[in-house]
Amino acid sequence: MFKEYDVIVVGAGHAGCEAAAAAANLGSSVLLVTMNMETIAQMSCNPAMGGVAKGQIVREIDAMGGYSGIIADKTTLQFRMLNKSKGPAMWSPRAQNDRKRFAEEWRLALERTPNVDFWQEMVGSLLIKNNTVIGVKTALGVEIMAKAVVLTNGTFLNGLIHIGEKKFGGGRTGEKAATGITEQLTQLGFEAGRMKTGTPPRVDGRSLNYSLMEEQWGDENPGRFSYTNVERSTDQRCCWITYTNANVHETLKEGFEKSPMFTGRIKGLGPRYCPSIEDKINRFAERERHQIFVEPEGWNTCEIYVNGFSTSLPEEVQYKALTQIPGFENAKMFRPGYAIEYDYFPPTQLSLTLETKIIDNLFFAGQINGTTGYEEAASQGFIAGINAHQKVKDQHELIMKRSESYIGVLIDDLVTKGTEEPYRMFTSRAEHRLLLRQDNADIRLSPIAHKLGLISDERLAIVNQKVENSDAIVGFTKKQGIDMSEANELLESLGTSALNQNVKLVNLLSRPQVGISDIRKVSAAFDSFLNTFDQETVEQAEIKIKYESYFEKEIEIVNKMQKMEDKSINPEFDYSKLLSLSKEAREKLLKIKPRTLGQASRISGVSPSDISVLMVHITK
Amino acid sequence: MFKEYDVIVVGAGHAGCEAAAAAANLGSSVLLVTMNMETIAQMSCNPAMGGVAKGQIVREIDAMGGYSGIIADKTTLQFRMLNKSKGPAMWSPRAQNDRKRFAEEWRLALERTPNVDFWQEMVGSLLIKNNTVIGVKTALGVEIMAKAVVLTNGTFLNGLIHIGEKKFGGGRTGEKAATGITEQLTQLGFEAGRMKTGTPPRVDGRSLNYSLMEEQWGDENPGRFSYTNVERSTDQRCCWITYTNANVHETLKEGFEKSPMFTGRIKGLGPRYCPSIEDKINRFAERERHQIFVEPEGWNTCEIYVNGFSTSLPEEVQYKALTQIPGFENAKMFRPGYAIEYDYFPPTQLSLTLETKIIDNLFFAGQINGTTGYEEAASQGFIAGINAHQKVKDQHELIMKRSESYIGVLIDDLVTKGTEEPYRMFTSRAEHRLLLRQDNADIRLSPIAHKLGLISDERLAIVNQKVENSDAIVGFTKKQGIDMSEANELLESLGTSALNQNVKLVNLLSRPQVGISDIRKVSAAFDSFLNTFDQETVEQAEIKIKYESYFEKEIEIVNKMQKMEDKSINPEFDYSKLLSLSKEAREKLLKIKPRTLGQASRISGVSPSDISVLMVHITK
Repeated sequence: MFKEYDVIVVGAGHAGCEAAAAAANLGSSVLLVTMNMETIAQMSCNPAMGGVAKGQIVREIDAMGGYSGIIADKTTLQFRMLNKSKGPAMWSPRAQNDRKRFAEEWRLALERTPNVDFWQEMVGSLLIKNNTVIGVKTALGVEIMAKAVVLTNGTFLNGLIHIGEKKFGGGRTGEKAATGITEQLTQLGFEAGRMKTGTPPRVDGRSLNYSLMEEQWGDENPGRFSYTNVERSTDQRCCWITYTNANVHETLKEGFEKSPMFTGRIKGLGPRYCPSIEDKINRFAERERHQIFVEPEGWNTCEIYVNGFSTSLPEEVQYKALTQIPGFENAKMFRPGYAIEYDYFPPTQLSLTLETKIIDNLFFAGQINGTTGYEEAASQGFIAGINAHQKVKDQHELIMKRSESYIGVLIDDLVTKGTEEPYRMFTSRAEHRLLLRQDNADIRLSPIAHKLGLISDERLAIVNQKVENSDAIVGFTKKQGIDMSEANELLESLGTSALNQNVKLVNLLSRPQVGISDIRKVSAAFDSFLNTFDQETVEQAEIKIKYESYFEKEIEIVNKMQKMEDKSINPEFDYSKLLSLSKEAREKLLKIKPRTLGQASRISGVSPSDISVLMVHITK
Repeated sequence: MFKEYDVIVVGAGHAGCEAAAAAANLGSSVLLVTMNMETIAQMSCNPAMGGVAKGQIVREIDAMGGYSGIIADKTTLQFRMLNKSKGPAMWSPRAQNDRKRFAEEWRLALERTPNVDFWQEMVGSLLIKNNTVIGVKTALGVEIMAKAVVLTNGTFLNGLIHIGEKKFGGGRTGEKAATGITEQLTQLGFEAGRMKTGTPPRVDGRSLNYSLMEEQWGDENPGRFSYTNVERSTDQRCCWITYTNANVHETLKEGFEKSPMFTGRIKGLGPRYCPSIEDKINRFAERERHQIFVEPEGWNTCEIYVNGFSTSLPEEVQYKALTQIPGFENAKMFRPGYAIEYDYFPPTQLSLTLETKIIDNLFFAGQINGTTGYEEAASQGFIAGINAHQKVKDQHELIMKRSESYIGVLIDDLVTKGTEEPYRMFTSRAEHRLLLRQDNADIRLSPIAHKLGLISDERLAIVNQKVENSDAIVGFTKKQGIDMSEANELLESLGTSALNQNVKLVNLLSRPQVGISDIRKVSAAFDSFLNTFDQETVEQAEIKIKYESYFEKEIEIVNKMQKMEDKSINPEFDYSKLLSLSKEAREKLLKIKPRTLGQASRISGVSPSDISVLMVHITK
């Protein structure tokens, strides 16, 4: 009934979809197995993509030929570049999306990917031979063979939904949990754990009083995630902001004794940086109010996502508290918020390719690895899909570096340090974040993607052209001078000191108050030179001019540290005989099997002196 | 958490959606409770609306202010008027629809119906007091009060899915079954039964070879379901036809020993007129081939519905047989076909308003009453929604007559005769079908809907104008003559005998070969007169001219039989004391509690002599 596939992807969320697309676009035959073809690429929680550090990840996926950015752009109903007032390393694109359209566009994109086939069913177990995965067996008992399998089960593995004192099995509300896989994997020697996450209630937008809330509009000139020219939506919608208050908090506290979080019924740890509202008022008791973002679920539906109000308190407590929020006095709920516990596998059991160490050709991606967030999931799926293809086609593995991408940071953190609570990306996790910006993901990653065959010659040429053009603009500003008298009126209006001699444009631009758009107004030569370049190129040049010196210093640091990263270690190196290592270091090194001295140095419990020992022995 | 609603509708399929909209539009506050808000108005089986007799039902729902016709029109990807070569009573509109768009438009239409609220959860039981329903209790234990409840549970009540020898609980594939309600209702004294239905596999359109199939396009000038001017889609798509053959049949037979149908594992009876492919080759062994309609699931998706290939044979047998169908040689399945067994309640337990006889203010609609088909379900939901509203607002009940609508035939058949197998509408079930045409549903039913308050004065005025205008056209043809010489060339070209004297237009039009469009070509006066009328009005006039005498005879019959229908019977009449009735008649009459002598006469087991006895006693 089925041919033998190169790659089977189990699960069709953000991770599974990117995995299937990536492997297929590289030339693998792919079967995407999902419990329900109508729920492919469901946004299970908030109807939004991107945000701080997460937006950078979407840009990276896009730069490498993934689909998340394109799908998000097509279905964006509000776009904002967050942190625009800070330095460019902090700029983070974020989009509100139409939930149904997002899922639909993903499915259509996969249908248009010729090597992707589909099968609707639950996978009950893996087929394994000689410690190598060779296929999957479905709940109906159908055996489907494959050279590699990518598991992206999200919250479905033994999913258990909690609302107040009630709990019931489910992978998402209204959907079945998946069973069998955890049990099989633990028998095979995998360590499994429990995590939890949650989601807020959904309400009827017709029942809200928006006049009591603050409007929040998107950017006037909305940006986008994708570096491609794929058509994007321009139909922007308003969101709103309101706040909890003491009454809301008091009401919520009344439900604490029935909270599955506080009564110990939920065993798994939840996402620290995406806490439930009860968690917030518990942990930050001094805060008088919390922000609530009121976000439409789509262009046409009246369904509203109550961002910031994730909760698993009893539904009547949720309701009572909700209606005490300004604008929500007459709110009608569509469904209560809930918490969900699910199985994950500590990601130290993976190599940096996201292949498991115990079973060959088996890859994990997404929440199964203990992460939270669509973007984190999508990027892991993307890399797992690539590496599954590379493995079955006997090609080089792809290991993303920490110095070249947030994706590299994410995977290295997971694999090297593990995680005990849902892992979310932040800019602070990336030591080289100055270099890992949303504006240059294409410049950073297109060569890698092109070498793999994920992006075309044309696409790479466009990126190279962008680099060349932005360099030309920088060069122009270094040569072109400006007349003191022409500049001073502008400088005064910008609140910066006047010139007392003619200077080059670059000197003006290095002042924080002065932007390229300002100089264009007073330098006709510059303006006409810039007219031949697009906005992104001009912006890239501006960032270079303003921050080049910082970037150069950062690159120096990267280069120094790169020496550690370049010292590769045989993953089969036998640390147990290296008695000069501390006992803890020996154990951790045996477990993590680092690929480089750099990775070894990031393992908690491995000290600088252990690294010195290793340096001696691995260079022998 | 919830106010007391006038009406709670349980289930959001075709029946539930129409019920909620109708009650809300009449002014009731309505809560629509569904297990999953993402699956409102799912087309569970074929992506199509209408067809023989069913299309007439959709027109009737539309004429009365229901939404099914409008939603279908908005999402039509192919429209055909079936049986156009037969008399107008057989003309039946049918549309292929975009499955996702259909569901989405329904949900948006409900969101835009101000009195409809939503709640996502499974209903576990009914709240009952003094034999009257007073609300529902959800699986979470939330109690929601209401003055009336409409149950539209479809195939979800204890749903059991069969594929070959495997079976598992589910309301649809990938969705949970609903439990609790059947058990409660049987404890309350309801009789419950089991039915089954099935659905074909879905396949990947990219894997089909359409060059081996026959193209089937829609009508050149596609019609529509709705009498309103709501915008409809005009983007038509092709379908295809192919055929099974001896090899396909042989392959399927190999699976018979594992068929849940033939091995007795399925207890419920399936729809006789929508049989599975294994049923067809079993019952019609002499047929060398069966037609397979290859229907797209939407404008953009590659998913294909294999109409005519419903099956619950083992998935590998389905697959092997499929690939022996011309054009399907390389077919890839997305999911196998399956059969589903579910609980229904023999509809003789209902009154003609669709209220149950055992529990006051509780209404049933759709598959729970033993019917099959979206249209049958939608129309019952519509009537149940109306009557739930009328009941809670102390208004007159609405009982549709057999002589005025297919909906009346449907409900009278169900309630009076019951059904042991899924009931499907046919034109042959309507004794007055000559009058129950798709072209005149607006004329038949608008006055009723207007009186209820479901359609506006404007809408009624448009219908009255249509009647007036078509009468004017008929009148014109009776007065306006045509010159023999002008007509004869046309008549010859149409293959009908020449005139030997001048006649009125009506005389020419009464010939079957001659249509209004023909006469327009030779009578400038007629053509210019008609130019002021729309196409529907002209068509209505033409039907009147050609069939008026048949209609008049039929109306005479209706009027005669109406005397029986007008003789109402007190539903509490005590037949047990009427010993002159046959024992069977007494029992049946006590069970059915007919409202009229006409209804009594249609009860199987009630003989003409029983009716004579009744006639004496009820007129006393």
